[in-house]
Amino acid sequence: MKPEKGQAWVLGLDYGTDSCRAVIMDAADGSEAGSAVMAYPRWAKGLYCDSAANRFRQHPQDYLDTLEGCVRGALKQAGPEAAARIKGIAMDTTGSTPCAVDRDGVPLALKPEFTEKPAAMFFLWKDHTALAEAQHINEHARSWGGIDFTVYEGGIYSSEWFWAKVMRALSEDATVAAVAHSFLEHCDWMPALLTGLIGPGKPGLAAVRRSRCAMGHKAMWHAGFGGYPADGFLAGLHPGLPAIKASLGTQTWTSDQAAGLLSAEWAARLGLPAGIPVAVGAYDAHMGAVGGGARPGWMVKVMGTSTCDMIVGPRPATETAVKGICGQVNGSIVPDMLGYEAGQSAFGDVYAWFKQLLSWPLEALLPGIEGLSPETRSLIFETLSDRLIPALEAAAKDLVPGQTGILALDWLNGRRTPDADQRLKGAIMGLSLGSDAPRIYRALVEATAYGSRAIIERFREEGVPVKGIIAIGGVARKSPMVMQIVADVLGMPIAVPASDQAVAMGAAMFAAVVAGLYPDIPAAQASMSAPLETEYKPEPGRSKVYDRLYKEYLVLGSFVESRTK
Amino acid sequence: MKPEKGQAWVLGLDYGTDSCRAVIMDAADGSEAGSAVMAYPRWAKGLYCDSAANRFRQHPQDYLDTLEGCVRGALKQAGPEAAARIKGIAMDTTGSTPCAVDRDGVPLALKPEFTEKPAAMFFLWKDHTALAEAQHINEHARSWGGIDFTVYEGGIYSSEWFWAKVMRALSEDATVAAVAHSFLEHCDWMPALLTGLIGPGKPGLAAVRRSRCAMGHKAMWHAGFGGYPADGFLAGLHPGLPAIKASLGTQTWTSDQAAGLLSAEWAARLGLPAGIPVAVGAYDAHMGAVGGGARPGWMVKVMGTSTCDMIVGPRPATETAVKGICGQVNGSIVPDMLGYEAGQSAFGDVYAWFKQLLSWPLEALLPGIEGLSPETRSLIFETLSDRLIPALEAAAKDLVPGQTGILALDWLNGRRTPDADQRLKGAIMGLSLGSDAPRIYRALVEATAYGSRAIIERFREEGVPVKGIIAIGGVARKSPMVMQIVADVLGMPIAVPASDQAVAMGAAMFAAVVAGLYPDIPAAQASMSAPLETEYKPEPGRSKVYDRLYKEYLVLGSFVESRTK
Repeated sequence: MKPEKGQAWVLGLDYGTDSCRAVIMDAADGSEAGSAVMAYPRWAKGLYCDSAANRFRQHPQDYLDTLEGCVRGALKQAGPEAAARIKGIAMDTTGSTPCAVDRDGVPLALKPEFTEKPAAMFFLWKDHTALAEAQHINEHARSWGGIDFTVYEGGIYSSEWFWAKVMRALSEDATVAAVAHSFLEHCDWMPALLTGLIGPGKPGLAAVRRSRCAMGHKAMWHAGFGGYPADGFLAGLHPGLPAIKASLGTQTWTSDQAAGLLSAEWAARLGLPAGIPVAVGAYDAHMGAVGGGARPGWMVKVMGTSTCDMIVGPRPATETAVKGICGQVNGSIVPDMLGYEAGQSAFGDVYAWFKQLLSWPLEALLPGIEGLSPETRSLIFETLSDRLIPALEAAAKDLVPGQTGILALDWLNGRRTPDADQRLKGAIMGLSLGSDAPRIYRALVEATAYGSRAIIERFREEGVPVKGIIAIGGVARKSPMVMQIVADVLGMPIAVPASDQAVAMGAAMFAAVVAGLYPDIPAAQASMSAPLETEYKPEPGRSKVYDRLYKEYLVLGSFVESRTK
Repeated sequence: MKPEKGQAWVLGLDYGTDSCRAVIMDAADGSEAGSAVMAYPRWAKGLYCDSAANRFRQHPQDYLDTLEGCVRGALKQAGPEAAARIKGIAMDTTGSTPCAVDRDGVPLALKPEFTEKPAAMFFLWKDHTALAEAQHINEHARSWGGIDFTVYEGGIYSSEWFWAKVMRALSEDATVAAVAHSFLEHCDWMPALLTGLIGPGKPGLAAVRRSRCAMGHKAMWHAGFGGYPADGFLAGLHPGLPAIKASLGTQTWTSDQAAGLLSAEWAARLGLPAGIPVAVGAYDAHMGAVGGGARPGWMVKVMGTSTCDMIVGPRPATETAVKGICGQVNGSIVPDMLGYEAGQSAFGDVYAWFKQLLSWPLEALLPGIEGLSPETRSLIFETLSDRLIPALEAAAKDLVPGQTGILALDWLNGRRTPDADQRLKGAIMGLSLGSDAPRIYRALVEATAYGSRAIIERFREEGVPVKGIIAIGGVARKSPMVMQIVADVLGMPIAVPASDQAVAMGAAMFAAVVAGLYPDIPAAQASMSAPLETEYKPEPGRSKVYDRLYKEYLVLGSFVESRTK
């Protein structure tokens, strides 16, 4: 019973790394009726972060400040009848992005005594302060004597994930440890908040439907374990963990299920009718995969500052663990299908790093040049910032593969997949006095493409076929040079849908399903997906050269691993 | 019989990579009476060079254009009686920097039909176009069945050296090959020209006293071979080489010997009396070592764009070949002492490369920013160019050794010593998203220091003691941060003489000896040397960390070598 155009709208909320985005879509065809974006104000100022120490925290107030503005902005754009037409809400966030909460489910940093304490805030997905904790988890998982609870997370637990960050928060700040009753992933906090489940006098944490996606991929939840890891295992890591586990319950939910109904309080604040079903939350990459067209055997690459590489497949009769990927969780992407998640810790961030490196002279020296007006300084800063990457691309795009002799390794933010190890570092080899900025830039792009290839090869080695590739995210639509190099390195065509909103679109599809407008996600995808915009086809000659260079990349990677203690 | 101050002056001419410098010194105490510098005009415009291909050629007219101006400029500064006081002339040049000459000894590029042909010009020391030729020489030296003529050049012949460049010139341009009767090193051409030995109707090439320093270090001349390599060996490399060899004679001369007397023609052109003795030429690094205070067991490091690391020692009863250094030649530095030469292909050039890399955005984008006046553009370019390296040093100097985790390899222009291999490339490892420009700069400085250490360790392994270190050249006096890091990495103090003119001073000492003002070089050094200015002392804590990091550098170097085919 497909909805008619103009009758039923849905609201998707996408909490990214830097900003919140609300999109109102027509459930009939996925067309956009209104949208709004707001940057996190504290995060934009760099508060609570220390990039040299890889500490990245986000204040819960940043998420609240942007929520109301985005929803009201999207409604305003969609017109006066929009609010009444919204039939379902779904939201996604980054992850693993957990925060310590009190007994009522309130993030500690929202309480006056914790408002400036980084350990009381959300630990953003890319926070790597829990390196030692992750190492502890991995060693303990091999040695504690029971089953290896990391098996469905690729056999290696990452510092980017839930339990490592919980341990880190508890050890980083004793005042936080003293009152942390539980931890909530960002994607679980938002629906619980909007549906009135948490806060003083509310039903409480036990009523919160934790995300299958979040807890399955990042918190070692698995149906086969009967839930989370055994108390005996967790107690061996930190004495406080069994109590945290108890606060999580034993079930998890997929996002085609409702977390609850929009509360009267939040309906008033957002300008919506109360009682709209709100879907269980999930991670942006996973909802993005759905919005991008996830279907069995295809990889959806969410390509931005990092990548998430998602595959769905029918659930096998006997589940075999895939080694070295971030995880495999039933229903984490599309309900009732096995969802595989992999990814690169830095992708666009590698290019951003190089841009930052090349901008050092201006940033360090331009302010000290006398005789320039503030307007001239701003003009130079902004023009160079806008034009630098395009200029590098223009100068690098016609270089012949292998011509420069430069070979780079993309692990500047560690390695997420295959075989997570955040201690690993990047490298640039083959430098000569003639190695200029465009040549190095090209090598960095090639390195990120090799990193993508390593993930696909791992899936294939482990028996998970990759039939085709769909790319979404900022890099996919903004950088033809990068996309062509990735296609050449993979030796596979890459399809790019004609939408900048694949993640919000995925959320909208879940909203449509919890609203009862479609029976399931494949049906919602069939009606709401964006058409394809571009297909990047590999050029066989270049692919052949890259086959050889990729082997050199693997040798370099092995060397770097062998020197990392 | 030490000369009195103000009585006997000498003229040193120093032909560097970019410019010619004339210095008039008082032979009594080495004090400077006058000097002048002129840049090579064609070279300054980048003519005849292709840095991406490592092709660096210098036109002989550049050397002539600067000669007259420099000598007259120095004389003018030294006062009206200067010309009459000059008792000796000596000159040094870069090397190996050979040029094809005709039967009369005229560099081919001075003839109208060759004036624009790069193969007819001087092949500057850092020209690496003869890589294949060097490889051919090395393979042939191992396989031809006779003795290994590379043994006193460290066992590995470099693309930077005489025979490789001769072969390259002959194969690069058939018109050059057709009329190339011989090749002259720059340091042999200048004295032969000034003393009237070459040119139409002159005594000719047979009268030219070839430099012991140049031919011993770079052309496989050795007294034990009876001169140059056997015809059978050379013919196996290129059929034209035996004839070239015949043009070289069988003897070589040290620079305490006169090449001849200043001709009337050149005396008139330079404004000097005819008949002044002109010393046999030598390379700048070797004369610089003398000017810097070379004495048995001490290493003089000439630190500039590249380094030359020179040691003199008493000639042993049985000469043992030192493996993997550029060479060991009796009398190449100080007559009657064994001269050892080693060095790094890129030192200051590594820092210059990084500066160039960081300057890319401005160079590519500033010209396209509308609304800036030409004056503003120039101001920004020039200020950033002047301040960039000092700003990097200021930001990098207080970083703690090992703190950044970045490890670099300094082979951006190949490796000269130990074990020459110009195919090798540089590398930067341990990069993270927090690796900013000062951190990478520091790693590059450390890499060049590790390269220096590798040379000293090789000498020691081969039984040549290194008792102390003296540093001269641009880097030695201009960059305290670099010098301190080198001292820390070497774990040895480094003495820096108070002179920017160590090379010209070395030439002046040879001029004083050929003029008969001193019996030998040690006597000239005793009177004419500059005092010490600074001594950089290693800090034991930092040295200990660098001991460990140096081992990582060696591991990285082995890896890069293993991947270089």
